[in-house]
Formats: sequence, C-alpha cells, structure tokens
Amino acid sequence: MLNKNPSTRTDTMTQTYTLEQIKTVCCQLDLSSEIEAGFVAYSAGQVKVPPVGELCFTEPPGDTHIKYGYIKNDDYFVIKIASGFYQNPQLGLPSNSGLMLIFCQKTGIPKALLLDEGYLTDVRTAIAGAISARYLAPENPSAIGVFGTGIQARMQVQYLKDLYPCRKVVAWGRSKESLHAYKADMSSMGFDVQTTNDPERVTAQCDLIITATPSSQPLFDAQLVREGTHITAMGADTPTKQELDAKLFTRAELVVADSIPQCIERGEIARALQTGTIDKDRIQELGSIISSQTSARTAPEQISIADLTGVAVQDIQIAKAVFAQLQAQTTSYA
Amino acid sequence: MLNKNPSTRTDTMTQTYTLEQIKTVCCQLDLSSEIEAGFVAYSAGQVKVPPVGELCFTEPPGDTHIKYGYIKNDDYFVIKIASGFYQNPQLGLPSNSGLMLIFCQKTGIPKALLLDEGYLTDVRTAIAGAISARYLAPENPSAIGVFGTGIQARMQVQYLKDLYPCRKVVAWGRSKESLHAYKADMSSMGFDVQTTNDPERVTAQCDLIITATPSSQPLFDAQLVREGTHITAMGADTPTKQELDAKLFTRAELVVADSIPQCIERGEIARALQTGTIDKDRIQELGSIISSQTSARTAPEQISIADLTGVAVQDIQIAKAVFAQLQAQTTSYA
Repeated sequence: MLNKNPSTRTDTMTQTYTLEQIKTVCCQLDLSSEIEAGFVAYSAGQVKVPPVGELCFTEPPGDTHIKYGYIKNDDYFVIKIASGFYQNPQLGLPSNSGLMLIFCQKTGIPKALLLDEGYLTDVRTAIAGAISARYLAPENPSAIGVFGTGIQARMQVQYLKDLYPCRKVVAWGRSKESLHAYKADMSSMGFDVQTTNDPERVTAQCDLIITATPSSQPLFDAQLVREGTHITAMGADTPTKQELDAKLFTRAELVVADSIPQCIERGEIARALQTGTIDKDRIQELGSIISSQTSARTAPEQISIADLTGVAVQDIQIAKAVFAQLQAQTTSYA
Repeated sequence: MLNKNPSTRTDTMTQTYTLEQIKTVCCQLDLSSEIEAGFVAYSAGQVKVPPVGELCFTEPPGDTHIKYGYIKNDDYFVIKIASGFYQNPQLGLPSNSGLMLIFCQKTGIPKALLLDEGYLTDVRTAIAGAISARYLAPENPSAIGVFGTGIQARMQVQYLKDLYPCRKVVAWGRSKESLHAYKADMSSMGFDVQTTNDPERVTAQCDLIITATPSSQPLFDAQLVREGTHITAMGADTPTKQELDAKLFTRAELVVADSIPQCIERGEIARALQTGTIDKDRIQELGSIISSQTSARTAPEQISIADLTGVAVQDIQIAKAVFAQLQAQTTSYA
C-alpha cells in the first residue's frame, strides 16, 4: 500500500558515521566475502559502474577520484570520493582522505554518509590484494615482497596474514627513515621484516610481491622476477603511473585485471597494451576467476600478475556491509 | 611556516549543515552576484568542470547526476549530487533530493556537507533563469508564461519578482489539480495567475516564457511564439528530454547556452543541432553575454532562447557562499 502522508523525518534523514564508528564495525564483518561477491557480480555484468570521475590539481599536486555505481536491483547505490594530496604530510595532514555516500536505489534519497577519511578505501584495496593472492599466488609463499612503505605496503601484507603462515617480508623503499618505520610497525604485528633499497633483493627471495608505490616508472627489471611468482600491482591507478616493467607481461602466463575496461585505460595493463607486450584477449577479470571455482594457476612455475586499479563495486560492497552493521548496532542499542 | 604536528581534529573535521540552517543563510546572501561571477569565470575558461556523472534507474525510473569542479586557484572544490525520482510523491517523498560537498582545494580534505535536500540546486537553477531574463528578456515584460506546475515553475517566477514590476502569470499544465495548487501558492505571493491547458493562451499573452517540465516532446509549436519573446528553457537536462520545437531555433536571433559543451550534448540545443535548425557558431554562452556588458538584445522584436542545463559552477558558487555564511554565523555565536 502506498503511503500518501508527507515524508517523515526518518524517511529523508541522512545518518552520518565517524571513522571511529566505522572502524569498530569493520572488525566484526567478513568483508572479504562481500568484496568477492562484488567482483563476481561485476564480471557477470550485474553492476553499473560509470567511468571514474576525476579532478586533478597542480598547486599543490593532488587528485580526487569519484567512483560510483550500483548492483542492479539492489537496495542502495554508492558514491565514493577519495583524494590523494601527497604534500599533506608536510602540513601534518594525512595524504589520503575521503568519504562514502549511500543512497536508496528506489528513491535517490541519501541514507548515510560514512566519514571514513579514506579508511574504507584502504581496507577494500587491501582485501582485493588478498583476494588476488588467494586465487593466483603460490599456495604457500616462501616470502612476501613489498615495494613501498606507505599505508598499502602495510595493509596489503597484513591482510595476507589469515591466508598464509608465511611471516617473512622483504620491503623495498627509497627512504631509510620510512623503511625503519615500516620495519618497526610490521615487526610489532608479528612479521619478520628485512628492508632494502635494492629491488633484486626482493625479487630474488619472494614469490609473492606487492607493488604499492605512486611510481611513474618501472620499479624493477622484468628479468629479475623468479618463475612461479605472483605480483599484485596496486599502486598505479592513473594513466601516467607505472610500477611494472611492461616486458614482464611477455613472461606472465596469467594476467588478471580487477576491471578490464578500467585497466585498459589506466594502470599496468594500459602501459603493456601501449608497448604491445600483451594482447587484449589474454586479460582475464578477477570476478570471472573467482566464479570459475578452478585454480587459475595451472603450473607452479607460472608468473601471474593482478593489476588492481580499484573498482566502484568494492566501494559499493564495503559501504553497504558497514552501513548495515552500523544500523544493526544502533537498533540493538535503542 | 609548516606545521609538523599531527592533524588536529579541526583540520580534518567535516561540518554537516541541515536544510534549515542552509535556508536561513540563503536569505542573507546576494546569491545572484555569486552565480553571475561563476558564469563569467566559466566562460573565461577559469573553471574546471569535468563531464557530468550520471546514474540512471528504471524500476522505478530515476536519475542521479554528479556535478563537480572548481575555479582555478580558489579555496575549495565542490561535488554536488542531485537525484530526481518522479514516483517519490506516491510514497510521500519529494521527487528531488541531493546534497553538496565542499573540499579544500589544497589538501582534498572534506570541509562541509550541505544536506540541502536539493534546495540549493532549486535556488541556483531559479537564479540562472533570472540572470538569463535580466540579460536577454524584454525590459518590461507584459506577462510571464510558465509551462509546468512544479517547484521550478514556482521558483523561476518568484526569482523574477525583484527584476520586473510585472505580476501577471499565465501557467500551463496538464493536471487541473496541479494548476489549482499552483494558482493558490503563487497568488499568495502576490502574482495574478491565469491557468490553462492550451499552450496558445501562454504564447499569445506572454513575452517572457519559462519552460519547466520533464517533457520529452515539444510543448508548443514554434509559430505560436510572438515576436520579441524571451524563452528560458530549463526543464530538459538529459539527451532525451525536450521542451521546445526545434524549428523555434530558426526564428530565434539570440540563442544562449549556460554551457556550450554541455548544451551540445543535452537539452534543447542538442535537439536543434540534431535536426539542423541551428549552427553551432550561432550559440553564445551566458557568461560571455554577462561579461560583454552590452545588451544582447539589439531589437525589440527579436526572439531569444536561454537553454539552461545546469553547470557545476553554479553549484560551486552557491555552496561556497552558503558555507562561508554558515561559518561566519558559527564564529559570531561562539
């Protein structure tokens, strides 16, 4: 029956949640399953994801991305705004910031603002890395290599903790100070961390490598990569950023994109396509790999690459799960 | 001097303002000047406005637009989200909803959420209509015609009140009920309202006409329009909507777009270009007309059309002005 009464305050009220509230509920949720389901829906064509909105700034340099979309016939749609301003730390501010907005898919009314300050983007990005490793990496990695010393260099490794017993980490960075801080932080979480400024020390020891830098040129030579290595490249999310040597794509048997349309435009695959080291037909999509239920890796010596540019469906899934839990808590306290 | 301390709560805090707070400060501001300045900056190439983001829904039908951008070297950038779900009234909810977000252009940090529920979009749209009339319409209109009986059919006319002594309004609509409500509301605001379902009664009496419907076909025949008439067409903001007979563009000496790139893609001008009734070269931009400081209309018998699709710079300007006033009030109360 239709309600012909004027809207009540509850109908149109937008709930605002703080980072602290969001962090609390995140620990209570199996976000990995939610995001896997999102990738599957995405690759099955059930998700509407328009092209990423973008604002670029030069003084100081920074960029803001708007990722948005919805799963068809779902309750909500989500708009995520995430910014990276890399000189912010000089002002005592974090480089990354952002928020997520949840709207009713049947009325367009904003239901919730998640003032997550970029935290949920960090979490969903790290989870996508763990999902990629789960479906592509060697079953029991000998050591985890990481390029970068920032938030994702930490979180990508932390989110592998539940998947593998391996605690050996080789971290590459340019700054001694950052490497020192990285080692201190990760050691306190139970990892056995070596640090280096020599890429070869990473590639020689590790068969699960994560690149998590804002680099615009390859971090290591393609020939350095050992057979049987899996690489998750998640740092490059614009057409100008690049972490992998494009020649690595001629050696990789498995090339997986979080979103084929997006990776053709930005990230490692975009560069490999430009240099002709990969054919478009060889690119597989993460959601299809997940739903195929068979191991993507068919021989232990294969090299695999997961190119992650970040897809709105990850934001949609994490925002919905967090919002549902926040609502459930409010109700149970009421 | 750089502040090397960790961010304080104030640095990263996002202020949320309600519709009630926003409405209060709107009355205290000269928003028309702000929006005129925005159009001028836009036509001078000082505004970065990426293409409009769009989500379309079918069950029930609705659409959400993301308009965003910034004036170069300004303090803020703005992201506006506005939805129209035309079956909402059946649920006792308003058709339109939305919010605006204000971010620091130097750090990317969200400074304010204006939970305006679409109100600021209504205001900036009505103001753009008044600005168009000021620069294009006859100096002293004999009667104001309006197609449509919704919010913009009201607000567009209300915002002309300060410009002209004319209080005679002829309103066209399809539903007797809506026309009756329109007449009651507008009469209480001092307008002398006739209602009709015959477009010719509007075109015969009025030399300032506003079209404010969600129509997807022309509302009246081009030949019905009197010489010397100005028409502000603001209802069509998607590629499929249309209010004006494309043939009217062969009769109009003055064709003005709020944004040439946007009007080529959506709205009346897009349709006229498709049917070949206008040359791209003949389209002028509102900001250029404003900054030229001369009357656009050079003879009283000319027909003029303003095609308004809504430009992010209007949202940027209104959001900034409202936020500054909200902040000033908070400070003065503190």
